[in-house]
Amino acid sequence: MKFELQATDTRTCARAGKLTLAHGEVLTPVFMPVGTRASVKAVEQRELYEMNAQIILANTYHLYLRPNTETLYKAGGLHKFMNWSRPILTDSGGYQVFSLSELRQISEEGVVFKSHIDGSKHFFTPENVIETQRFIGSDVMMVLDECPPHDAELDYLKKSNDLTIRWAERAKVHLAKTKPLYGYEQTLFAITQGGTNEALRIESTKRLVEMDFEGYAIGGLAVGEPAEAMYRMIEASHPYLPQHKPRYLMGVGTPENILNAIERGVDMFDCVMPTREGRNGRVYTRTGTLNLRAARYTHDFRPIDEGFENYVCQNFSRAYIRHLLNVNEILGLQLCSLHNVSFFLWLTKTAREKILSGTFNDWKEEFLASFRADKHA
Amino acid sequence: MKFELQATDTRTCARAGKLTLAHGEVLTPVFMPVGTRASVKAVEQRELYEMNAQIILANTYHLYLRPNTETLYKAGGLHKFMNWSRPILTDSGGYQVFSLSELRQISEEGVVFKSHIDGSKHFFTPENVIETQRFIGSDVMMVLDECPPHDAELDYLKKSNDLTIRWAERAKVHLAKTKPLYGYEQTLFAITQGGTNEALRIESTKRLVEMDFEGYAIGGLAVGEPAEAMYRMIEASHPYLPQHKPRYLMGVGTPENILNAIERGVDMFDCVMPTREGRNGRVYTRTGTLNLRAARYTHDFRPIDEGFENYVCQNFSRAYIRHLLNVNEILGLQLCSLHNVSFFLWLTKTAREKILSGTFNDWKEEFLASFRADKHA
Repeated sequence: MKFELQATDTRTCARAGKLTLAHGEVLTPVFMPVGTRASVKAVEQRELYEMNAQIILANTYHLYLRPNTETLYKAGGLHKFMNWSRPILTDSGGYQVFSLSELRQISEEGVVFKSHIDGSKHFFTPENVIETQRFIGSDVMMVLDECPPHDAELDYLKKSNDLTIRWAERAKVHLAKTKPLYGYEQTLFAITQGGTNEALRIESTKRLVEMDFEGYAIGGLAVGEPAEAMYRMIEASHPYLPQHKPRYLMGVGTPENILNAIERGVDMFDCVMPTREGRNGRVYTRTGTLNLRAARYTHDFRPIDEGFENYVCQNFSRAYIRHLLNVNEILGLQLCSLHNVSFFLWLTKTAREKILSGTFNDWKEEFLASFRADKHA
Repeated sequence: MKFELQATDTRTCARAGKLTLAHGEVLTPVFMPVGTRASVKAVEQRELYEMNAQIILANTYHLYLRPNTETLYKAGGLHKFMNWSRPILTDSGGYQVFSLSELRQISEEGVVFKSHIDGSKHFFTPENVIETQRFIGSDVMMVLDECPPHDAELDYLKKSNDLTIRWAERAKVHLAKTKPLYGYEQTLFAITQGGTNEALRIESTKRLVEMDFEGYAIGGLAVGEPAEAMYRMIEASHPYLPQHKPRYLMGVGTPENILNAIERGVDMFDCVMPTREGRNGRVYTRTGTLNLRAARYTHDFRPIDEGFENYVCQNFSRAYIRHLLNVNEILGLQLCSLHNVSFFLWLTKTAREKILSGTFNDWKEEFLASFRADKHA
């Protein structure tokens, strides 16, 4: 893995970089569409290529349960399995174990949990999660972390933070003992925790940075805390994160969240919002979001976002998509998902261009003023 | 409308033709993917172009209810509404009134029915169904017919047959009084009825042919009767249908049904099977169908049909699609639907090529022997 810092904004901490992974280059800031179970929901792989998705995310927890590592290994890894030739990042499953599964028992060794699908019992450790990600063959692997709830007591948060740090160390030690299975290199990012407690967040960051990982994720945020608290944590982390390594804010977020995080030095993002909202008929435009299920679009023959250059806006009207959603045609979900993913890709791509041209801050303010106005509701 | 008979098979009644409609040429035999509610389920319009769908079908009953004629008129017709530039054929809604709606009251004048969506009351007449299809702007309109159940009593069948014939006459008279709304010509096909009663079927055919429609559909079949009875009806109709006009067997059918009907002189087909089966994970191959939900495909990394030249077979494995279906990813339905529609298009396209090269009969026997063997189940 290589990360080249190409530009830093003059007025903010925003950065433009180039991440070189086994399956190709990723220009940052970057939005990674979420393909949890080896598919970006309702979007075809060729459509992801077409809209220039540079890297997608998949999830270790989900893929470990289904199809499982045997199938992925026999397929020759996730890239071949799903026919995606560009980079893939996999989350470790830590977050999912704590948000989806039942009957978790956390110990020093790891976490026992019951599958949310069939109740079967499983055990994740920092070591076996690395091995699972070897079977998956993701370009970027993530360490196993514990994700405490955002309202956890300080005492718990402290213990949890220490555990995540010890787990990261074990992950790094184990990484060196394993090899990639498919003939290309994989890299490993650490995940900082500490909730919204500044001291703990800084401690987590410092200790993980000492271990010298190839990249750093800021984890345990966007779990219900106010956005301002999240921004404070990014700001608090900033001085302690190495400039020459990529920074990834996990599970974030709205266009506003993303731009505010870019401004604070974050390079990488993933979020289910574009596809989840798309399946609900909510679409993003440069002047806010629209709920295309609403009757007001029945005779609105304009594109979702007039002048926006993507396949959906160039070919279909709000009225047509509203009809599809209204009669529950799958194509309605497809078009909304496609549009939204392409909108989020456009957002980070444009942010990058503005950083490179030295106009990020002005553009961001302008975009948000227009976006927040949300004339449509 | 123009129909040119390009070739007739030497050993069977199979025909190859060229139908010229307002939105383009249609080479027959042709399979028309079904886009009931202005979308071929789970397939994008650009994908239909890509797989060379020449004409699609939509439904007057469904479009009349949702989005409704006002929306379609304001959109400039169905082609513009759904962004489809090739021909469209619309069924009249007769079949849907009799199969989907509740509380039907048939009179000489027309049929009163309650919407299957909200129970609202509506009235279809031979005249207003033409007008609705003017609003839709389909290249080929169909007359309103009554579709009796396949086990109807002879007496009822006879009365119903006469009614459908009188309705066809009224439709033709009314057609002349109306004009296309969007600046291009629309044509009108009649629909023969008579169930599986040969005498009634022949009477229906003769009387409708006397009225000189531009094309003829064989209706009221594929509604539960044995396939042999359907084939007999096609054979009985054959001598009475004009050679130089297109023949359309409505709602048919399996690959075997389609080839047997082509052999008996049918030019046009539509069926929901490829998309409906696709959404259930059943896919078509040249050696039978596969139920891709089955566990046996977990580690089957072959394409759906080895050597079949379409996007799905060239890019994805049975194991991957099986996984998608297993975890309920929309992409699973998309890929199965895409594959199946492309398979049916390939089937009629190949039948046409074989008719033109004088080898239809041999190819058909060979294909069916292989297809029926159904090694996969």
